[in-house]
Amino acid sequence: MKELKLGLPLPPPTDGPLTVDELRLAARNHAMPLEALRYPVTPVGLHYVLVHYDIPAVEESAFRLTVDGEVERPLSLTLDELRALPALEVASTMECAGNGRALLAPRAVSQPWLLEAVGTGRWRGVALHTVLELAGLRESAVDVVATGLDRGIENEVDQRYQRALPLAEALREEVVLAYELNGGPLPPQHGFPLRLVVPGWYGMTNVKWLASLTVTDEPFTGYQHARSYRFRLDPDEEGTPVTRMLPRSLLAPPGVPDFLSRERFVDSTPVRLEGRAWSGQGRLVSVEVSDDDGVVWAPAQLTDDLGSPWAWRGWTYEWNATPGRYVLCCRARDDAGNVQPLEPVWNVGGYANNAVQRVPVTVVD
Amino acid sequence: MKELKLGLPLPPPTDGPLTVDELRLAARNHAMPLEALRYPVTPVGLHYVLVHYDIPAVEESAFRLTVDGEVERPLSLTLDELRALPALEVASTMECAGNGRALLAPRAVSQPWLLEAVGTGRWRGVALHTVLELAGLRESAVDVVATGLDRGIENEVDQRYQRALPLAEALREEVVLAYELNGGPLPPQHGFPLRLVVPGWYGMTNVKWLASLTVTDEPFTGYQHARSYRFRLDPDEEGTPVTRMLPRSLLAPPGVPDFLSRERFVDSTPVRLEGRAWSGQGRLVSVEVSDDDGVVWAPAQLTDDLGSPWAWRGWTYEWNATPGRYVLCCRARDDAGNVQPLEPVWNVGGYANNAVQRVPVTVVD
Repeated sequence: MKELKLGLPLPPPTDGPLTVDELRLAARNHAMPLEALRYPVTPVGLHYVLVHYDIPAVEESAFRLTVDGEVERPLSLTLDELRALPALEVASTMECAGNGRALLAPRAVSQPWLLEAVGTGRWRGVALHTVLELAGLRESAVDVVATGLDRGIENEVDQRYQRALPLAEALREEVVLAYELNGGPLPPQHGFPLRLVVPGWYGMTNVKWLASLTVTDEPFTGYQHARSYRFRLDPDEEGTPVTRMLPRSLLAPPGVPDFLSRERFVDSTPVRLEGRAWSGQGRLVSVEVSDDDGVVWAPAQLTDDLGSPWAWRGWTYEWNATPGRYVLCCRARDDAGNVQPLEPVWNVGGYANNAVQRVPVTVVD
Repeated sequence: MKELKLGLPLPPPTDGPLTVDELRLAARNHAMPLEALRYPVTPVGLHYVLVHYDIPAVEESAFRLTVDGEVERPLSLTLDELRALPALEVASTMECAGNGRALLAPRAVSQPWLLEAVGTGRWRGVALHTVLELAGLRESAVDVVATGLDRGIENEVDQRYQRALPLAEALREEVVLAYELNGGPLPPQHGFPLRLVVPGWYGMTNVKWLASLTVTDEPFTGYQHARSYRFRLDPDEEGTPVTRMLPRSLLAPPGVPDFLSRERFVDSTPVRLEGRAWSGQGRLVSVEVSDDDGVVWAPAQLTDDLGSPWAWRGWTYEWNATPGRYVLCCRARDDAGNVQPLEPVWNVGGYANNAVQRVPVTVVD
């Protein structure tokens, strides 16, 4: 297809009702049901999925990863050749940069995430630096551009999905070209046969259906860097890039739900509240819990099932309550000084809204 | 918890904007992205999922299936005991009874499905009749009530999820108590460790996290039979039960999508259109395709990848088009005389809306 101006421009943020475009995206993509916080590693099918365009059909036998640009030895690698290189497995928590978007007012018209666009996987593959060393980086190298096999039109721009990493990020030892998730082959919706996994960063950098790595001698300025995935207070400003995950904690709602409202009913306390928390900005240092909508906070007990600095940590809190109505909240803090705010921090694209979760609970006599 | 009148009554159908309750359900549950129609068997994570309440935590070692009621020998079976019985694998297409609900006007306020709440699995387990024969059915047997481990409050009724099958349906040879999906253990969201699979019926009868089978001497009148899952034109009428799937065909949208609208752009024809079609009411006999919003129809070619009478069949259609804008549709017909309508057939609960899919496509010069 010729590169035409096709599709529709993205509309401005709205306070209006949810649109059918948003519903269509919400039906295709999915978050992690909050009760799945019980699993240290998220089972396949429960990890959040966001597909910008279509999941492409890929034949493993025809697949090649090409490596070119500012390298000494351009490469074209089969999956078997990648599997023959030293392997690395990283347990890593991944959250969509748009998580919390639908809770902003006005909100960007896009995938309408609430709270739970997250998951943790055991990603196994070859370290990105291993492949870059095989190709031999030139001194001129600045960015590594990852291109997926998925193609679509976004905000009138016909594109294959592309994100880049600055060289210092690309060479981190835990950045993986993953061909396995949780001990099995990568599922189609998570990027079969190959996915770039960048621990600590929001999901958009974890390019699925990875087809090529191009080393550039200047910073990448493609659509998903220069136009999308930027913090802006005004649509016309340049803004700053969305990169690593802000701290967030989530609570597995206790008791039993009402079908439609998802409100919770708990029949007796004490109740052990459980959840998980993470940050891509620093080491997670604490989780606090409140049962009065964030007025009084008490410390939760941190656990560490996975022992990976890139994975969420579990937390528990023994909650005693008398019959009545409560609003449970939790908030995470990291050693970079970030703490979850009680109210959202707004931006045009609806990124990185890590305001605390609120879980209305009725304790029944 | 005492059985209290808790939660909220379901609201009446609405023409209003999508509510946050509906969005919350859409974020938890998910449909099958339409490009996944390419897979004869739907990969785990792409099959539709609807969870009424919460996915329960189940320890396999503690799990027992109890069989009681109108039987000679009440049973309590471990998973290993179930696995030791003769095994059966059935490739079966499952569609949510609420598929198409959000396209009705006014629409029931519930899980807001559009078109794609479907999937096909290879379900392996032990035939239900094998277990019932082991227990020995009494002559008084009328219904087999299946109870899941999931509990919630729905329309002010505190309940564990329950559905029943009339005896004649329960004894069909292809009705399975499945402990495997697609060759692996049942995933949590599909009912680990055991699920009732009733080929041909809508999803609500395929009880997940199956904990007990109770044979009754009169027809079951639980919430999910007497109040929910009924065709009604007025909320106060008794209505008729929702049972087997009406015929439906779906088209994998061709070309590339616009991110937000999901509208399609195709750069050259001929294009091979592909999709799948099924019916639980009879044998699928034809699929037809239209490129003018359902005015003129032409026959598609049926394929049969799975060779199972309970699974969808593939179809293809060679489409030649000149540049312009089209609305592609497809419609399925079965040998019971059912054909997909161009416009929805309305009912209060928003069930079984099998009106034809419409796919706007622009062919680019």
